Amino acid sequence: MATRSTIMDTNSYRDEFVDLLPPQEKELIQRRSQLLGSAYRLFYRKPVHLVRGRGQYLWDAEGNQYLDVYNNVASVGHAHPVVVEAVSRQLRQLNTHTRYLHEAILDYSERILATMPAAIDTAMYMCTGSEANDLAVRVAQRYTGGQGVIVTREAYHGTSALTSGLSPALGAGQEMLPTARTVAAPDPYRSGSAELAQQFAATIQAQIDDLAEEGVKFAAFLADSIFSSDGVFPNHPGMLAAAIDVVHRNGGVFIADEVQPGFARTGEAFWGFARHNLVPDLVTTGKPMGNGMPISALFAKKDVLAAFGDHIPYFNTFGGNPVSIAAAQAVLDVIETERLQEHAQEVGTEFLTALRQVGVAHPSAVGDVRGAGLFIGFELVTDPESKTPDKALALDLLEELRERRVLTSVAGPFGNVLKLRPPLPFAAADISWVCEALDISLTVLGR
Amino acid sequence: MATRSTIMDTNSYRDEFVDLLPPQEKELIQRRSQLLGSAYRLFYRKPVHLVRGRGQYLWDAEGNQYLDVYNNVASVGHAHPVVVEAVSRQLRQLNTHTRYLHEAILDYSERILATMPAAIDTAMYMCTGSEANDLAVRVAQRYTGGQGVIVTREAYHGTSALTSGLSPALGAGQEMLPTARTVAAPDPYRSGSAELAQQFAATIQAQIDDLAEEGVKFAAFLADSIFSSDGVFPNHPGMLAAAIDVVHRNGGVFIADEVQPGFARTGEAFWGFARHNLVPDLVTTGKPMGNGMPISALFAKKDVLAAFGDHIPYFNTFGGNPVSIAAAQAVLDVIETERLQEHAQEVGTEFLTALRQVGVAHPSAVGDVRGAGLFIGFELVTDPESKTPDKALALDLLEELRERRVLTSVAGPFGNVLKLRPPLPFAAADISWVCEALDISLTVLGR
Repeated sequence: MATRSTIMDTNSYRDEFVDLLPPQEKELIQRRSQLLGSAYRLFYRKPVHLVRGRGQYLWDAEGNQYLDVYNNVASVGHAHPVVVEAVSRQLRQLNTHTRYLHEAILDYSERILATMPAAIDTAMYMCTGSEANDLAVRVAQRYTGGQGVIVTREAYHGTSALTSGLSPALGAGQEMLPTARTVAAPDPYRSGSAELAQQFAATIQAQIDDLAEEGVKFAAFLADSIFSSDGVFPNHPGMLAAAIDVVHRNGGVFIADEVQPGFARTGEAFWGFARHNLVPDLVTTGKPMGNGMPISALFAKKDVLAAFGDHIPYFNTFGGNPVSIAAAQAVLDVIETERLQEHAQEVGTEFLTALRQVGVAHPSAVGDVRGAGLFIGFELVTDPESKTPDKALALDLLEELRERRVLTSVAGPFGNVLKLRPPLPFAAADISWVCEALDISLTVLGR
Repeated sequence: MATRSTIMDTNSYRDEFVDLLPPQEKELIQRRSQLLGSAYRLFYRKPVHLVRGRGQYLWDAEGNQYLDVYNNVASVGHAHPVVVEAVSRQLRQLNTHTRYLHEAILDYSERILATMPAAIDTAMYMCTGSEANDLAVRVAQRYTGGQGVIVTREAYHGTSALTSGLSPALGAGQEMLPTARTVAAPDPYRSGSAELAQQFAATIQAQIDDLAEEGVKFAAFLADSIFSSDGVFPNHPGMLAAAIDVVHRNGGVFIADEVQPGFARTGEAFWGFARHNLVPDLVTTGKPMGNGMPISALFAKKDVLAAFGDHIPYFNTFGGNPVSIAAAQAVLDVIETERLQEHAQEVGTEFLTALRQVGVAHPSAVGDVRGAGLFIGFELVTDPESKTPDKALALDLLEELRERRVLTSVAGPFGNVLKLRPPLPFAAADISWVCEALDISLTVLGR
């Protein structure tokens, strides 16, 4: 059976916090609750009202500057001038669809496919990570003839009917697909086992067997290799190879969801799967691909994709349009010219070291600090011996950090892991802002 | 049972046409087939290679100017400077998501909801029409507790797993949902009945009964009120009221898919459903909303939406971001300042009259010309008595029109209806370009 959680509701404004708010924000929230559906959530007990961004910094309506340590959409930096100019230029020229010929989509496809293993040789474009995962699962099901999909226990893969049913992170209100199964993400902090890679592979085999017992043929393992919403588990490079061997031995495909680790963020590699020396069958991307322009993609082995594409036309009106492609090209330009992958590795390593020092100064609260490049999990516990997750502390800490103008949020099944994932220009000079804010906040909170 | 078609493949390049192509286009097509998935389709036997657009005009790589009589995405005109400037300005400022407070999404929601019946009072934002329909169907299913969805026989509602299963236009390769049923779109040309409204309502009741017999509770009727992919049937205003009464009497909801008729296109009203004096329960939008920026929306009665939103968080990373909203606001500005709704009605009426004159000059080929505003169907038949659809003529005609630099495509279960749906700035002066091209092309084709 698939297990469920309610993590999505953790860092959220609720009406009981209304008296914390200044008048302008109170009015905006009242308008929101009147105009927008109740499915919408705001971050923070005291939500932030942003009006401007640049690089890794954001400003609110009163001119306060924030350090963004959370948003991987504006991955090469908020309002990056190279991306802004590329998009504006193409908007003045032409914005149409893929039923007419256009070079830009081909030039981009060649460039991005060159960053992948040669077996991944085909591209398709959509607008959101949800759309990419929705299509990837359908392709996997057509190719394998199976329906069973395995995801991790706290996974989030999208917001469509199909991908919501593969996203236990959405909470108990959202039913999982009957053909879905979950496995716990590989957590070296709590497992402590030297055999974690084999154990993880074995849990996948067990779920494949469970599907088979109920007459469901296995189709795919869909995972983000840094296990972002499970609590950020980069693990050691190569660690996932055994699990993917199990997937392939059972006739399934591996869909690497690169919405989180892709586009140079982990420093060690351009793609999350590449840290593990894997060749996925399907790769999906989203958030950072266009630095905020709605573009996503499915990259695939030609024969896997053909099982779908030879029989069903797929047309995504806005997918792969010249403007979105211009944004995506500019993102690659910036990553190269600003050496952001190397930068993510260098500054990420320095950041990790500094965060571990905060942990040393607050040993009763900080259980583990782990990361790859600029993707770091900072885990809060009630005490380091029991490793009991301290969600209350994590939520209080978020608010304290917000008061010190450091924006982040939480992840993991217990909502106790700070997810530190800044825009890639995040600089060595920003580290002290975060670490001092963490240090003071933990002290203020008596930890 | 749901019936199927293969219309999606009609106006498509196929490899057998390769020798028609100049060298540059041949090379682009070879790169496409190598780099992009086989699910992609190109328009025309001799695809068009576009590099620039402005207003209702497009230019190819050799500098040839085309009249665009097809694309409703760049609805207020290709590269409209007001939209370009609004998007560029906001890109320089901030592009982030709905978990922080921002005025723009609230200002836009107030403005767009003011164009609808008061009962439709809540907005949610996505990136594509597919995402809007996917969510709308899930909301309808939660609200009603049913699963059954009725669509028209040639409907296209999206590309996600759920919406593909509600899109018979995708052809026989795509399975329909077992809980889907189809009805023929109301076709006054072929039915000739004065009782068409009642007959259409009765076919919906029959499908609701058929669902009930198989134990499936009825949830929704999902339709585009101009029946675009069914062959463009505007019908007379008010005609759909009886059908929607049946939907409501059976406890279902009506989802008005406004991706096609919305945003002033029909001239007679800002929304397609408004032509019929209806109050839908859910309204979805897409293509024209941001003039090419990927933005879509679901507008809803608060209580209908609450059945979903009170239980499941919905977060669409790029949905409702300030840049997409800036595009959508600019589109409304342009529609107002350029009086595009009035313009669509005036020039659309004139266009319809001129097209009917073409029909009079070619009575053996043109069976019917019908439309509302700038959404016109031009139906080709083998002879006007039998009304037998002439798909071969329609496809030949498309290519002849392309040679005369008029871009359009076909619709309908038989692929024999030209879908004339230009950007709204389409001017009275453009009418003769289209009509002369049609006249000469039909003559060249011996009709």
